[in-house]
Amino acid sequence: MKKSVFYHAGCPVCISAEQDIIQLIGAENVEVIHLGNDKSQIETAEKAGVKSVPALITPNGNVLHINFGASLEEVKK
Amino acid sequence: MKKSVFYHAGCPVCISAEQDIIQLIGAENVEVIHLGNDKSQIETAEKAGVKSVPALITPNGNVLHINFGASLEEVKK
Repeated sequence: MKKSVFYHAGCPVCISAEQDIIQLIGAENVEVIHLGNDKSQIETAEKAGVKSVPALITPNGNVLHINFGASLEEVKK
Repeated sequence: MKKSVFYHAGCPVCISAEQDIIQLIGAENVEVIHLGNDKSQIETAEKAGVKSVPALITPNGNVLHINFGASLEEVKK
């Protein structure tokens, strides 16, 4: 199976959701990208349809916005 | 592993998220409850911390609100 991608920005909501997602689908099935640490990935995330973090891109390209940590606009700051 | 519980109410956002979740974690690992069809479960969902649907309760009891279909208040109508 193609990997899912989990975007977050280090906020408490993000970290909690990350742990849940890894537990549910397995660490080997998800690539975790910290947009706060790697701002060059923000544009890629936006193009994939990410509006806020934490968010999970499924292997078929759907975006699941999980709870709400921060908007991408806030992450850009 | 204890099952996760996926609450939804039949809305398009819910159905789409349901398919994604089932694909990610496997149909055998998630119990799907349609709150629109089974309103007796709304109180249980609220007590678990569900504020809107679709939502996933993880095996350790965390609530992941995934995207936004409808608030529980709307589902009660």
